[in-house]
Amino acid sequence: MGTWRVYLSGEIHTDWRETIMEQSKALGLPVEFSAPVTDHPASDDCGAVILGDESNKFWYDQKGAKVNAIRTRTLIEKADIVVVRFGDKYKQWNAAFDAGYASALGKSLIVMHDPSLTHPLKEVDAAAFAVTETPGQVVDILKYVIHGQLDR
Amino acid sequence: MGTWRVYLSGEIHTDWRETIMEQSKALGLPVEFSAPVTDHPASDDCGAVILGDESNKFWYDQKGAKVNAIRTRTLIEKADIVVVRFGDKYKQWNAAFDAGYASALGKSLIVMHDPSLTHPLKEVDAAAFAVTETPGQVVDILKYVIHGQLDR
Amino acid sequence: MGTWRVYLSGEIHTDWRETIMEQSKALGLPVEFSAPVTDHPASDDCGAVILGDESNKFWYDQKGAKVNAIRTRTLIEKADIVVVRFGDKYKQWNAAFDAGYASALGKSLIVMHDPSLTHPLKEVDAAAFAVTETPGQVVDILKYVIHGQLDR
Amino acid sequence: MGTWRVYLSGEIHTDWRETIMEQSKALGLPVEFSAPVTDHPASDDCGAVILGDESNKFWYDQKGAKVNAIRTRTLIEKADIVVVRFGDKYKQWNAAFDAGYASALGKSLIVMHDPSLTHPLKEVDAAAFAVTETPGQVVDILKYVIHGQLDR
Amino acid sequence: MGTWRVYLSGEIHTDWRETIMEQSKALGLPVEFSAPVTDHPASDDCGAVILGDESNKFWYDQKGAKVNAIRTRTLIEKADIVVVRFGDKYKQWNAAFDAGYASALGKSLIVMHDPSLTHPLKEVDAAAFAVTETPGQVVDILKYVIHGQLDR
Amino acid sequence: MGTWRVYLSGEIHTDWRETIMEQSKALGLPVEFSAPVTDHPASDDCGAVILGDESNKFWYDQKGAKVNAIRTRTLIEKADIVVVRFGDKYKQWNAAFDAGYASALGKSLIVMHDPSLTHPLKEVDAAAFAVTETPGQVVDILKYVIHGQLDR
Amino acid sequence: MGTWRVYLSGEIHTDWRETIMEQSKALGLPVEFSAPVTDHPASDDCGAVILGDESNKFWYDQKGAKVNAIRTRTLIEKADIVVVRFGDKYKQWNAAFDAGYASALGKSLIVMHDPSLTHPLKEVDAAAFAVTETPGQVVDILKYVIHGQLDR
Amino acid sequence: MGTWRVYLSGEIHTDWRETIMEQSKALGLPVEFSAPVTDHPASDDCGAVILGDESNKFWYDQKGAKVNAIRTRTLIEKADIVVVRFGDKYKQWNAAFDAGYASALGKSLIVMHDPSLTHPLKEVDAAAFAVTETPGQVVDILKYVIHGQLDR
Repeated sequence: MGTWRVYLSGEIHTDWRETIMEQSKALGLPVEFSAPVTDHPASDDCGAVILGDESNKFWYDQKGAKVNAIRTRTLIEKADIVVVRFGDKYKQWNAAFDAGYASALGKSLIVMHDPSLTHPLKEVDAAAFAVTETPGQVVDILKYVIHGQLDR
Repeated sequence: MGTWRVYLSGEIHTDWRETIMEQSKALGLPVEFSAPVTDHPASDDCGAVILGDESNKFWYDQKGAKVNAIRTRTLIEKADIVVVRFGDKYKQWNAAFDAGYASALGKSLIVMHDPSLTHPLKEVDAAAFAVTETPGQVVDILKYVIHGQLDR
Repeated sequence: MGTWRVYLSGEIHTDWRETIMEQSKALGLPVEFSAPVTDHPASDDCGAVILGDESNKFWYDQKGAKVNAIRTRTLIEKADIVVVRFGDKYKQWNAAFDAGYASALGKSLIVMHDPSLTHPLKEVDAAAFAVTETPGQVVDILKYVIHGQLDR
Repeated sequence: MGTWRVYLSGEIHTDWRETIMEQSKALGLPVEFSAPVTDHPASDDCGAVILGDESNKFWYDQKGAKVNAIRTRTLIEKADIVVVRFGDKYKQWNAAFDAGYASALGKSLIVMHDPSLTHPLKEVDAAAFAVTETPGQVVDILKYVIHGQLDR
Repeated sequence: MGTWRVYLSGEIHTDWRETIMEQSKALGLPVEFSAPVTDHPASDDCGAVILGDESNKFWYDQKGAKVNAIRTRTLIEKADIVVVRFGDKYKQWNAAFDAGYASALGKSLIVMHDPSLTHPLKEVDAAAFAVTETPGQVVDILKYVIHGQLDR
Repeated sequence: MGTWRVYLSGEIHTDWRETIMEQSKALGLPVEFSAPVTDHPASDDCGAVILGDESNKFWYDQKGAKVNAIRTRTLIEKADIVVVRFGDKYKQWNAAFDAGYASALGKSLIVMHDPSLTHPLKEVDAAAFAVTETPGQVVDILKYVIHGQLDR
Repeated sequence: MGTWRVYLSGEIHTDWRETIMEQSKALGLPVEFSAPVTDHPASDDCGAVILGDESNKFWYDQKGAKVNAIRTRTLIEKADIVVVRFGDKYKQWNAAFDAGYASALGKSLIVMHDPSLTHPLKEVDAAAFAVTETPGQVVDILKYVIHGQLDR
Repeated sequence: MGTWRVYLSGEIHTDWRETIMEQSKALGLPVEFSAPVTDHPASDDCGAVILGDESNKFWYDQKGAKVNAIRTRTLIEKADIVVVRFGDKYKQWNAAFDAGYASALGKSLIVMHDPSLTHPLKEVDAAAFAVTETPGQVVDILKYVIHGQLDR
């Protein structure tokens, strides 16, 4: 298989995506990464900015969430592997939603989170093929599943 | 259509499910409700109790979550409508996971939560056909979509 | 096959549905009919009445259309045959939308309309298994496909 | 994702498609656009011209609509995003049919129309991820969902 | 499984369907049989009789074939097992079409024909789970797969 | 959900199926069990007995395996839960084939085997929602997922 | 859409495939054609030659038909358009089988045959988007659906 | 079709994969081969090495099997043809699992094994399009189905 498509969902306040992408690039892995829009204000405001402002916050949010869904749904459906990262802040229900969505589509799900979140994430972890804690582990998995290369 | 199948996912610490079921019954609505196991300790321990104890908490949780998944996946796949309730406590990532799973399967999703949760739930709400706040609204929707009856 | 499920979509201002249902009943055909909510004001207002009023007409309509979609989508997906009637008034884009939706799901589509609408409906007719003009023709088709009975 | 495939359905009497395509090209967006045949006489006559004339107008139209369907169905099924434009003239039932067809296939639907059409298009809009009024808004959405770039 | 649904496609000029149904009934097999309309003139004329006459033979046939397809497609899609019988007369392309259609849907295909037809039917037979010569063999298979009962 | 459908695949030389069925019945569980034909000689000979003898052992086996597949494929596709039991004798590749088949169809897979088989069955276990050792554990799971009842 | 994939099924004793391919090439149409193996003896013997001879003609044919099915099924599933040509000789049940198979997969079906075969092919024609008589008409359709170019 | 994707599943202790790949390359066949990780220790240990050690052998194996499943599931789902080789040692339940998984996904299955395994593999063989004994036969099939070239 030429190129593996990996979607990186979830937490947007640390540089875990960049770490995964840089390490993968350094290894020359044939991976095409994709992700949601990680510019938080743009992600919140895209609907109102493009389609017109809304005074009602519910519809303001709905407009934006729907526009973002065009991107996230399309990219998740194209992905071979979906990695979902849960951080230590915020509700992150969109991350769990993506995990459920990806799982129902039969994607290979990899979850990344601190062990302290194990209990509340048990249903999400149970749908995963690997539960990781660090970007390095995700890269190790990619290297292994793509090239069969395991560093001991 | 004889009977509508409605799955009630999410928060397990208030009586919202009972309210919906009782009001629907009082109205004679032809609905077959289903839900996850709402006995919290049973839900946590089912894997270890049935399949053997685990000293490692991660695997303890995984065993349980997998057994629960037999129930939840089967019932969500059979459902026509999936209602997901978010309360004001706990992480509730399993609720968001169910919402994503149901949405990817093309189920009609109804979300129920307090308006204070609108922003963090915007992606989940964006996948819903109705965003409600009370069990009564869910019953009103069921009554309307099944019988076409709208009380003003 | 015990019961055939037939969804009657489209025009809501004449009694074509009742005619089909009565004639089918008189013939004892094993058909379970379903339809959208045909009470026009209820159909327009259901979202705002159940979920809360909206001053913005766009969102007022969206709330209602989404609630109605719970019913229409569920029933179309359960149907074996989808009949779509186009009348001589109104835009009726929802009827054409239902026809496209049903066609993509592989339902057997029957269209009913006056010959004067043949040209603008040619793409819809092209997706149909039968293009009829009267409720009696629809009943004749049901009688034939269910019982193999053809009255000459 | 290398290239996004966008199908432009609906109104064929204004230059909205060209505007979207030119603006996208100017921005260097990696989009492959497709559309129905927009030469109205060719679209009407293709069946009879290629397959043989028909004196009966119904079959004349059917032959053409079926040949056009080879193109439209194939391209909609390949598309990631389907944009449907409703103008102020004609019945445009084929546009609504395409919207229903695309929606049932799980495509990301974007609708474009004048606000005056909001009420009759409410069911179509309810299936959309964005309801736009201008080609520029469609291009803004494409720029945002592909590059995450939002101009304020 | 309560009832097995078996569709009997193909040749309509001998009593093979009646033989299978009678023997199955005598054995008390829980099978619900279905079939195309086997009244040949009705099958040929149903379109024109119900929807209006056609002077052009091609369209006369198309109208009928489309109406018949409502029945055959629906019943094949509902079936667990599809039996296709090829006789010694006529082209019987509709039988082979049904076999291909059923096979692509993943139905369990049983073919019945005289050994003299083995070579021209080799592609159809290759898609079958059993190639039979007599109605009795079909009934033996049904008895075996339903009850596990094998008479030696 | 009224009745749960559970397919019992795999080993046919011990009474594990009967134990599961009797215990489930004693508990009044609403389960409809199904299974392959467990009469080994009938299972081996069904093809040749019904369709005609074969001197070549390969084709003898193929005829039988294909007839059995009508039963096993149909029942697995109808099942909600597929239980696959591996014993301590024979190759049992058909059991592993069924597990893969059921897994690809999205069925909830439960595996049953002695811990001594853990290593060679690791890929099969990895696809399972529960790995059990005894019929009693399977019944406990059914009781729990159906009634939410957990005996400690 | 870059390249259209067109599978050419059916009659193998005239040069209709070559005509279509040459005319398409002359027009520079972006079409990738595929077809079954049209070397009749190779097609008949491939199973026995590669996998070992069979004295029983039925199994001889089955071996070959199965090997051919690897090619035909794969190519039909990859195709956007399936053209099926019926000639004036032989049973051609494999052609009708392919038409049914392609139709159930939702492929755009084009049928080619002499008008004298209209009646026995009516069910196949009813599943088609175009019924043609000559290779030139098929090329005209390809030119039209790909480029929107209609020569009058 | 440009490139055919062939997944080589099963036995990892002989050089059958290399033989197939070398012979295919020598023939210039446009095939992209893929396979599970065939480094047995890496395949056993990948989960524990990447995700952290496990003292419990069951979880040690599960971690590894799940990581391997990311590779095998993805590659099988991308494949056009799945070849499964059974050797004369080990349980090889993963090979049979892959065969069932591939079969349920509708892949063209080719099985390779010694005739001595015919009886225990009869259900797997029955799902195959070809049952081979040598790598050369697999290459002959690829050459034939891709180029239509049959060497006698």
